[in-house]
Amino acid sequence: MDNFTYFSPTYFDFGRGAQAHVADLIRKYGGSKVLLHYGGGSIKKSGLYDEIVKILSDAGIPFVELGGVKPNPRNGLVYEGIELARKEQVDFVLAVGGGSVIDSSKAIAAGSVYDGDFMDFYRGKASIEKALPVGTILTIAAAGSEGSPVTVITDEETLIKKGARSDLLRPKFSILNPELTCTLPPYQTAAGATDIIMHICERYFSNTEEVEITDRMCEAVLKTVIYETPRVMKDPDNYEARANIMWSGMLAHNNICGVGREQDWASHHMEHELSALYDVTHGAGLAVIAPKWMRYVLEINPHKLVQFATRVWDIPMDENDSKATALKGIEAFEAFLKEIGMPETFADVGAKKEDIELMTDKVLRTKDTEGFYVKLKRDDVIKIYENCV
Amino acid sequence: MDNFTYFSPTYFDFGRGAQAHVADLIRKYGGSKVLLHYGGGSIKKSGLYDEIVKILSDAGIPFVELGGVKPNPRNGLVYEGIELARKEQVDFVLAVGGGSVIDSSKAIAAGSVYDGDFMDFYRGKASIEKALPVGTILTIAAAGSEGSPVTVITDEETLIKKGARSDLLRPKFSILNPELTCTLPPYQTAAGATDIIMHICERYFSNTEEVEITDRMCEAVLKTVIYETPRVMKDPDNYEARANIMWSGMLAHNNICGVGREQDWASHHMEHELSALYDVTHGAGLAVIAPKWMRYVLEINPHKLVQFATRVWDIPMDENDSKATALKGIEAFEAFLKEIGMPETFADVGAKKEDIELMTDKVLRTKDTEGFYVKLKRDDVIKIYENCV
Repeated sequence: MDNFTYFSPTYFDFGRGAQAHVADLIRKYGGSKVLLHYGGGSIKKSGLYDEIVKILSDAGIPFVELGGVKPNPRNGLVYEGIELARKEQVDFVLAVGGGSVIDSSKAIAAGSVYDGDFMDFYRGKASIEKALPVGTILTIAAAGSEGSPVTVITDEETLIKKGARSDLLRPKFSILNPELTCTLPPYQTAAGATDIIMHICERYFSNTEEVEITDRMCEAVLKTVIYETPRVMKDPDNYEARANIMWSGMLAHNNICGVGREQDWASHHMEHELSALYDVTHGAGLAVIAPKWMRYVLEINPHKLVQFATRVWDIPMDENDSKATALKGIEAFEAFLKEIGMPETFADVGAKKEDIELMTDKVLRTKDTEGFYVKLKRDDVIKIYENCV
Repeated sequence: MDNFTYFSPTYFDFGRGAQAHVADLIRKYGGSKVLLHYGGGSIKKSGLYDEIVKILSDAGIPFVELGGVKPNPRNGLVYEGIELARKEQVDFVLAVGGGSVIDSSKAIAAGSVYDGDFMDFYRGKASIEKALPVGTILTIAAAGSEGSPVTVITDEETLIKKGARSDLLRPKFSILNPELTCTLPPYQTAAGATDIIMHICERYFSNTEEVEITDRMCEAVLKTVIYETPRVMKDPDNYEARANIMWSGMLAHNNICGVGREQDWASHHMEHELSALYDVTHGAGLAVIAPKWMRYVLEINPHKLVQFATRVWDIPMDENDSKATALKGIEAFEAFLKEIGMPETFADVGAKKEDIELMTDKVLRTKDTEGFYVKLKRDDVIKIYENCV
């Protein structure tokens, strides 16, 4: 086990009707004027927008609002949000939505109290020294941004996705009401579940030895999401299954399942370039790439894939052929992704073979290899992308 | 799944040599004068005391000290600590030791900034409104107090153990260096592992349905501790096994494994009266009581014991006789406890049959039933105690 630090100070308020506590929580964490940040029309259609506006108004908490966050959130809207936050002198950012809204809110929170261009944080030119407090009301179980220190923003000009990270960006509170996710379309639900699974897999596939507790925690989340997602696909209003997935989404990304080990993240980074170019739903892009990554690294470093097969997918161990055992695990994962309606190939998500060189360039922009479970060189990245065609 | 809140803001610094960061962490959390609180001679023998004193001195952080915390910590020493903290105007309490030292430190932290008798918090007469910040350097993997909001103190006059709880008591930081646990004697190591297992079991044995994620998290910790403890018993210097157990101890009690469900706690409460009367090591007392509790409730409410058997102990499910399946799980647990050298009966820990009525009175002092998985009445509590004789 490697040395580590673990810090997850967010206050989580989970369950039916939890959004009713939002005004109390904003006050508790020092908010007196709020920027309400959200996405498209879904929270207006569902009535959540009206509910939040009423709660804030009844509580006498003034707010300004900025909607329009798109999946794979862009820096353009963040600049707008920063300007608005400064002009209106807000001291709290409330994100109502999924990971994109939360990531955009974190960017505004850090950018509005920074003298330079907030993209400095994403370009590695500055580190975040302060930020407005952020609270969230989560409406999609997927990204885990509700409990993470991370924000990912796409540069509109270059279409490059870049992340920034600071413990100051961890939400002060996150309200997780599974009811709010019941109206999510099946494709988004399945893509969210895939994202959750892959947040775990990026941590699970590691060469660090003797991290039994973190391995077991990873397997706990994986087995839960694998069990609950098909239940939700069959019955979108299944509160209990939605609840288990929603909490799994937080656990998958606040790093409680990642401590004490080297992590991989190759699939995520390869997918980021896919969704930046084609605006693919992140989880759907992962469904295309991750199994191909698994099949590719199986030939080089099979050991953790064997454990993935036996412990997560309950594949019986073939003592004479551990690689065959591992392969059955990958096949089970592929069958699962198919069952929940996720895409398999570039064609399914509108990606083009001709862009593989460009995406590979972007993946490896500042380094020679990608990932850690297997250190992928340029040729390896290209081959994995090609296997997605 | 029940609605819940989850809040665990402690900063954990885990790994070899982590105590070297203690001065930086004290400063980060606002400490300028420290009360260094510890137990008997073990930290002096091991050299940890000298190391901490040197780090604080080198960093120019003034401190006063109070040693002498005993297992099942008493209110007498807490009063001393409060007086010292006030007289010396300390603004930070550093606990160096195990759960008893941390619990005593939490009591001093809350009591020294309270106008009344600190035992009010433990007698339910007052709630904790403020407390000095507490940091910990953990030397025993067991109690989980390093990440919990709870403190348990024994009243010297009545020998009644009482708990108090506040998020203000959660340590600001906890330093977990598994190396520091390698000198722990085998009996204390095994008792610690038993305590960890039972912190999970109290949460696991629940009638709340559809909490798959928390069930799986509980099973993750249980399987880890069951795997790692015999390794440590054979090789006390096995850092990796110590590390997995130490982190499991935190996870078992900061409630990440307990959210969304009704919890039981009957075994703990019955054991508290045992250790209050006879000064039994808490984990050893649990080893005596818990299997008898399991065998007793098996007759009334077997369902979760079946899952415990199949998922935790890998007992094959007998579809024709689920109770027999569950019993095999309890037997496996008993065999495990025996293997690691834990006691089985009252005689093994010096407890007397004649005190059963008294202990039962104390367990049920303010209520009609104990526990939730099965609501034990007076007769039930007596029978479980009698089965320990």
